[in-house]
Amino acid sequence: MIKKNLKFGLVGAGFIGRTHALAIHATRQVFADLEYLPVPHMLCEVSAALAEKAARNLGFERSTDDWRKLVDAVDAVIVAVPSQLHREIALNAFASGKHLLCEKPVGLNSEEVEQIRAAAKQSKGCHAVGFTYARAPMIMFAKRMIDDGKLGRLLHFSGRHDEDYLADPDATFSWRQESKVAGRFGVLGDLGYHILSIGRMLCGEVRAVCGLTETFYPERKDGSGTVRTVENEDYAALVGRFANGAAGSFQSSRVARGSKQNLSFELSGEAGTVRFSAERLNELQFYSATDESSTQGFRTILINAAHKPYDSFIPAPGHGLGFNDLKTIEIRQFISAIAEQRSCPPDLDDAYAISKICEAVLQSNAEERWVNLR
Amino acid sequence: MIKKNLKFGLVGAGFIGRTHALAIHATRQVFADLEYLPVPHMLCEVSAALAEKAARNLGFERSTDDWRKLVDAVDAVIVAVPSQLHREIALNAFASGKHLLCEKPVGLNSEEVEQIRAAAKQSKGCHAVGFTYARAPMIMFAKRMIDDGKLGRLLHFSGRHDEDYLADPDATFSWRQESKVAGRFGVLGDLGYHILSIGRMLCGEVRAVCGLTETFYPERKDGSGTVRTVENEDYAALVGRFANGAAGSFQSSRVARGSKQNLSFELSGEAGTVRFSAERLNELQFYSATDESSTQGFRTILINAAHKPYDSFIPAPGHGLGFNDLKTIEIRQFISAIAEQRSCPPDLDDAYAISKICEAVLQSNAEERWVNLR
Amino acid sequence: MIKKNLKFGLVGAGFIGRTHALAIHATRQVFADLEYLPVPHMLCEVSAALAEKAARNLGFERSTDDWRKLVDAVDAVIVAVPSQLHREIALNAFASGKHLLCEKPVGLNSEEVEQIRAAAKQSKGCHAVGFTYARAPMIMFAKRMIDDGKLGRLLHFSGRHDEDYLADPDATFSWRQESKVAGRFGVLGDLGYHILSIGRMLCGEVRAVCGLTETFYPERKDGSGTVRTVENEDYAALVGRFANGAAGSFQSSRVARGSKQNLSFELSGEAGTVRFSAERLNELQFYSATDESSTQGFRTILINAAHKPYDSFIPAPGHGLGFNDLKTIEIRQFISAIAEQRSCPPDLDDAYAISKICEAVLQSNAEERWVNLR
Amino acid sequence: MIKKNLKFGLVGAGFIGRTHALAIHATRQVFADLEYLPVPHMLCEVSAALAEKAARNLGFERSTDDWRKLVDAVDAVIVAVPSQLHREIALNAFASGKHLLCEKPVGLNSEEVEQIRAAAKQSKGCHAVGFTYARAPMIMFAKRMIDDGKLGRLLHFSGRHDEDYLADPDATFSWRQESKVAGRFGVLGDLGYHILSIGRMLCGEVRAVCGLTETFYPERKDGSGTVRTVENEDYAALVGRFANGAAGSFQSSRVARGSKQNLSFELSGEAGTVRFSAERLNELQFYSATDESSTQGFRTILINAAHKPYDSFIPAPGHGLGFNDLKTIEIRQFISAIAEQRSCPPDLDDAYAISKICEAVLQSNAEERWVNLR
Repeated sequence: MIKKNLKFGLVGAGFIGRTHALAIHATRQVFADLEYLPVPHMLCEVSAALAEKAARNLGFERSTDDWRKLVDAVDAVIVAVPSQLHREIALNAFASGKHLLCEKPVGLNSEEVEQIRAAAKQSKGCHAVGFTYARAPMIMFAKRMIDDGKLGRLLHFSGRHDEDYLADPDATFSWRQESKVAGRFGVLGDLGYHILSIGRMLCGEVRAVCGLTETFYPERKDGSGTVRTVENEDYAALVGRFANGAAGSFQSSRVARGSKQNLSFELSGEAGTVRFSAERLNELQFYSATDESSTQGFRTILINAAHKPYDSFIPAPGHGLGFNDLKTIEIRQFISAIAEQRSCPPDLDDAYAISKICEAVLQSNAEERWVNLR
Repeated sequence: MIKKNLKFGLVGAGFIGRTHALAIHATRQVFADLEYLPVPHMLCEVSAALAEKAARNLGFERSTDDWRKLVDAVDAVIVAVPSQLHREIALNAFASGKHLLCEKPVGLNSEEVEQIRAAAKQSKGCHAVGFTYARAPMIMFAKRMIDDGKLGRLLHFSGRHDEDYLADPDATFSWRQESKVAGRFGVLGDLGYHILSIGRMLCGEVRAVCGLTETFYPERKDGSGTVRTVENEDYAALVGRFANGAAGSFQSSRVARGSKQNLSFELSGEAGTVRFSAERLNELQFYSATDESSTQGFRTILINAAHKPYDSFIPAPGHGLGFNDLKTIEIRQFISAIAEQRSCPPDLDDAYAISKICEAVLQSNAEERWVNLR
Repeated sequence: MIKKNLKFGLVGAGFIGRTHALAIHATRQVFADLEYLPVPHMLCEVSAALAEKAARNLGFERSTDDWRKLVDAVDAVIVAVPSQLHREIALNAFASGKHLLCEKPVGLNSEEVEQIRAAAKQSKGCHAVGFTYARAPMIMFAKRMIDDGKLGRLLHFSGRHDEDYLADPDATFSWRQESKVAGRFGVLGDLGYHILSIGRMLCGEVRAVCGLTETFYPERKDGSGTVRTVENEDYAALVGRFANGAAGSFQSSRVARGSKQNLSFELSGEAGTVRFSAERLNELQFYSATDESSTQGFRTILINAAHKPYDSFIPAPGHGLGFNDLKTIEIRQFISAIAEQRSCPPDLDDAYAISKICEAVLQSNAEERWVNLR
Repeated sequence: MIKKNLKFGLVGAGFIGRTHALAIHATRQVFADLEYLPVPHMLCEVSAALAEKAARNLGFERSTDDWRKLVDAVDAVIVAVPSQLHREIALNAFASGKHLLCEKPVGLNSEEVEQIRAAAKQSKGCHAVGFTYARAPMIMFAKRMIDDGKLGRLLHFSGRHDEDYLADPDATFSWRQESKVAGRFGVLGDLGYHILSIGRMLCGEVRAVCGLTETFYPERKDGSGTVRTVENEDYAALVGRFANGAAGSFQSSRVARGSKQNLSFELSGEAGTVRFSAERLNELQFYSATDESSTQGFRTILINAAHKPYDSFIPAPGHGLGFNDLKTIEIRQFISAIAEQRSCPPDLDDAYAISKICEAVLQSNAEERWVNLR
């Protein structure tokens, strides 16, 4: 049987755009059971020359500097550009009935996420959001353990996503620190979104939060040496309650010396606890209260064929995946969702809920009070 | 030169009282340079028989079931009984000019801590509080690193003290869950006090907090099978600001499956980060931004002679101390403070500040707002 | 400039063959600076149907059940079939001037490796061997640290490659336990080869060894239930001397419960020590004697752009590679070697030296004596 | 009931002698169920002044510079002086019917150990050897797990005891490098003894070995600047067979940069594997093949009341012991053995067997062959 092609268009070929490109290719060999054959069809960059070079390097058939042409030409659009461009591309894609995989934080603020999400509901296009870590096999397995009751009633979650890419006081001002380009959120939108997506995936909806944000470096020089005001937060911390009765705390920092991909969490339930850190992506720590007391302890579970879809990459246990493989899983899940004509969670609904949590944190900080969600 | 004796009286010979007893003995051989010779003179327990047996086992010269007699008979009083008894003993000790080492949380609430502290200020007696972890060599060394500028400006702290001694839903109701015996705080007073003492020792005064508390098991059966209401929290989480501009988050749980002595923290500054966990008491993780980028990483510093006063226990590096050794350090610091006629921090001033933070968390939870301290 | 194509032929599409297929594809996007464009041209399997299906799944243009046709049709041959077939394919490939990337252990014994290697020397074909772990960025970086003098004079190495794929007493007898298919070596050829290749890469030639081997499960049932004799070792351990004066010990087991990809080593020099485990592929532990004593400790170096060629995969530090990415690096190195008309170490010379070490271990075990190499 | 006193005499108050002194005191309070009351009666050092000072600091009733007087005056003798003095003191003690706790390696060579052991057999004195690590609760628990069948048939052991106290090329020549004082063995006698004692305790008798030794720093300057020849090995590595069919490898180094107390091992059996490192003294790693495959992994078992006699020190789990506590356990075991009129393993029989293994390694190195034991 010949599979139907699914033409992908990639808007943006920076760090994260490039990982999407690699993933589109890789899915074809990694997953033998794809419903459609993903075709890296068109790539859009800010100039025709840049687009052409990136398309050649990344194996795309065509290139353009006009994302509207790309939307027209493909079946599925991947948006991997700064937030200020998300809304227009997304609305256009959905209006054309195209599928959309949008990078987080999705738009400049919750209002934009809501607009995009509303458009999606009117469209036959499917949607996914680049909550890549939520698709890590060991995190999806943690979710399965919860569903299977291995942790019992959930009590408390604590999570963080810290990195240190702006820890250097002399780091250059970039678009990520500029509100009109990156949006209302600083580290919350960049990293906080990830750990919030995982907290919600594992524990459910967040009901109320209080928190604080800090901009430890309020000014930075840009490439030309001009002093610029940093317009969003370097750090945020919050505590909150989940709708299911569990409690939680979250932290996110982009100035945490030594943290490189420190998306980590601990979740305790009545019957056990799991711990994870993305810096050790192929491990899950699990403590089971059902083990006998003399040999109880956190187990370092190494990834194996039971932790889907690791087995599609490698049959042997413990050989490990890298970050780029997570993007391959993301594309694979997106293709399945398209085939099944459904959204691909974590999706725009999740992005919207998370954007509301982030705004509640800003509000809690500003108004010095707890903020209820919904 | 013959050293002057310092007669110790121990009120309470349970788990923690016993560690004080061991420590009084151990200081004599571990520390060659003691200013006074600590003498385990009198031990007080709830019955004469129990007191006599404990005194014999723990090497005390005399025993009593009347703590007033003990206060009269000794130079220094160690209070290791439930919180409801702290105030009366402490006030009595200070009135008699005796030195006091009081276990945390010190009294039933901040008002009592304040009364005890006020009495201390009127007395020639010195005071210390059983903030034992703050005296761990690797934590004191972290403090020294901060003072030496190795972390630069402090940015954010996150810490927790979790255990699982009440994680079993069928665990028996005990005095620790009863407000009139244990005081206003549950896990905050038992474990939270420790991590708050360390956060304050490293980062300074806390200026404002918001937080939440939960009692996940609102009822438990006592020894006789009677269902009892749990009167204080199983879990607390908070975020806050330090006076020096750093931000922080804290968590404490007594129902965290798998956590046995999980007092752990991470503190990031402009120039570096330290990480610690009391479950690996003899290690400190340190990331220095000054290392060259290709070989940068968290170092696992193993305890050695540079981490005072480890060298008094063992000259060889990496051989390690246990929890009981921390109590020996506590007694040794207390003796020095007495010799120098000063208090022995973390002391009653610290206990008072921490009790105010804990009450602010309860208030934040109840009133759904941030609470300023002072 | 249009790059010249380099047609690859893959013989064998099992576990390891498949990773080669993925890697051929991935190199095209991961490495922008490839000298040739690798083309997955032909795939050979034991039947035409199997070959055709594998070729379709793995993105090869053509398929065959005759490896001779494949050799004729391509520029570079990858041999990923059981050892008994290595010699004939390899000799044929070299006779045709084709490049060869052969999986270890290369042939049935050192005599065959020597024949293949001799043929390579007569051919214009370049050669590489599937010593995949030796190409892990953190191990290559360890090599660079040694070359840069960061460890000083090398003193002692200890390494192992343990897995547990035959730890289950009821595991089925397979071709790997049959000498005429898998060759003279059991775990030594399968896993021992890897850690020996790394020991030699870091410390140089091995001069003398003594060691032992064990077959803990001398009989196993095959798929049909027939009891079969296991013809090679489950475990080997050896000590030895390197030509440079360093000492070493090696272990390899295929029955080590809990070891999944436990290729790990520690290498101590006068000035420092490095530690590595493939189960934490993206970390290198480094202890430098030049650090000040109070903050000395093993650093957990997380992979970053300084650890080539990680930056070709991901610009952000700490995001990590998986095992399949190592194969991509292998193909990339092979292409460079072909472009530069040289061999691609670790290569057939290394495989030969290692096969001689393994035979020396068998001899030491049989004759109860040390065995000198050369 | 009044306990009978047991008078201890300590010969040597250096690093390790001092730990014995602390332990004699600590046993009295830590263990409520002691059969005898240990009394630190007399301490012997090389001069009367030194002895008097040490006795005062370490709480001994009397002091002397004549070990014969000490032997006469006490019930039990602890020998913590360099090896050249072991034999004479030990023979004298046994001749007087005194109990003996001798530090390893016990005498200058196996002949001396044999003489001491023969004397013990003629004496009513009980004997123990300072194999302190073998008494670590988590190692004794590993032994219990083996006895309970949790590992199944034992397959292979690998262990090491590495430190770096002589890693500095400029470290001063000391008595430990001088054969006539320290004995035939260098690091084998100092550290190797420990890991060999544990290997034998867990796996039983060693039947044959081959190995190598190296003196990487053949000359060092002594305190006066005179260049001295290092007379024993800095490093040893060996492989061997246990009588029960298991295989093993051992390493010991005193020049291993970064290793501080790296006594570590891994033992794999048919049903599971345990891993231990004395640098994390309060943890045991355990992998059980009986766990279900999706949640299988090494468990980090933290010390708790099930790991005897930890509960005598602290009732709460995970609070941890330090190295000095191991000496307290050693004294406690010795007292029990005396009360039961038996030897206290690991004892002189073990020391003798281990001295024979070490000599076999030297012989294997010299004669380039395997050496059988017995």
